[in-house]
Amino acid sequence: MTQICYKPIGIIHSPFKSIAGVPIQPSAANGIKGHIVIDEEYTEGLADLDGFSHIYLLYHFHLSKSYNLKVVPFLDDKKRGVFSTRAPKRPNSIGLSIVRLTAVKSNILEIENIDIIDGTPLLDIKPYVREMEGLSDYKIGWLTEYKDGMKTKNSDHRFK
Amino acid sequence: MTQICYKPIGIIHSPFKSIAGVPIQPSAANGIKGHIVIDEEYTEGLADLDGFSHIYLLYHFHLSKSYNLKVVPFLDDKKRGVFSTRAPKRPNSIGLSIVRLTAVKSNILEIENIDIIDGTPLLDIKPYVREMEGLSDYKIGWLTEYKDGMKTKNSDHRFK
Repeated sequence: MTQICYKPIGIIHSPFKSIAGVPIQPSAANGIKGHIVIDEEYTEGLADLDGFSHIYLLYHFHLSKSYNLKVVPFLDDKKRGVFSTRAPKRPNSIGLSIVRLTAVKSNILEIENIDIIDGTPLLDIKPYVREMEGLSDYKIGWLTEYKDGMKTKNSDHRFK
Repeated sequence: MTQICYKPIGIIHSPFKSIAGVPIQPSAANGIKGHIVIDEEYTEGLADLDGFSHIYLLYHFHLSKSYNLKVVPFLDDKKRGVFSTRAPKRPNSIGLSIVRLTAVKSNILEIENIDIIDGTPLLDIKPYVREMEGLSDYKIGWLTEYKDGMKTKNSDHRFK
């Protein structure tokens, strides 16, 4: 299959400067603060994000240079198929985290509960919209009033 | 910033052959069946996935050829910053869905609750590990016995 190429939209900054010692997921990174510098060309796309308490970050594990199909995950002592783990060394080294969004200041996002290494290239941001255990102060911004509609509405051609 | 390139690991198959009429998210696609054909070179990486009831799919919106920083989402009639929406036309057109995993047969994954267009290139699979509203029969496979450890354990050098 052909390659698919993306250009990072910003850089994630965190207290974690090396691979070891990083919380293995946001639920273990409670309160740890970081920020994201979004390239200014994308600032307009951050509108309305401040209504959401939590966001998905999709990012590139830039320190992972290879992969194995079986890995021993941090939580286990047995080899597991890489797709049943969150291990960074995967065929496409894309990371996914849910973090708490505390402020949006122009092209800067202030975040908490960060389990990501400093300097990580950010690929995408999506709103986190579902109730999830362990998230306090949950909010879904402008979507709040559309909760019922979400379950029945289908797409149309507007994004063609 | 420099480009980051990925090679799809498989193709997602669904009943949705065109952009219109696709459920806008898995919660609206309850019971809709599809399957994923993973490239055989990655089959070994699917081990242990069958213990999970739900998985994250990260995929490329292959029909999105451009983007806007403000979009009118399917659920709204106002323009919103694209990063506060799940709109497919985004700077990096990466899609994220949580689907139900019903069977793993060699390199084929049978899935339900699919809100994805037929022929979509798959980039990554991750286990879905948190309790979430509206998911019945929730399971987290081999991670079940590590629920407590997840909150305290940090990473080490094994994926360097």
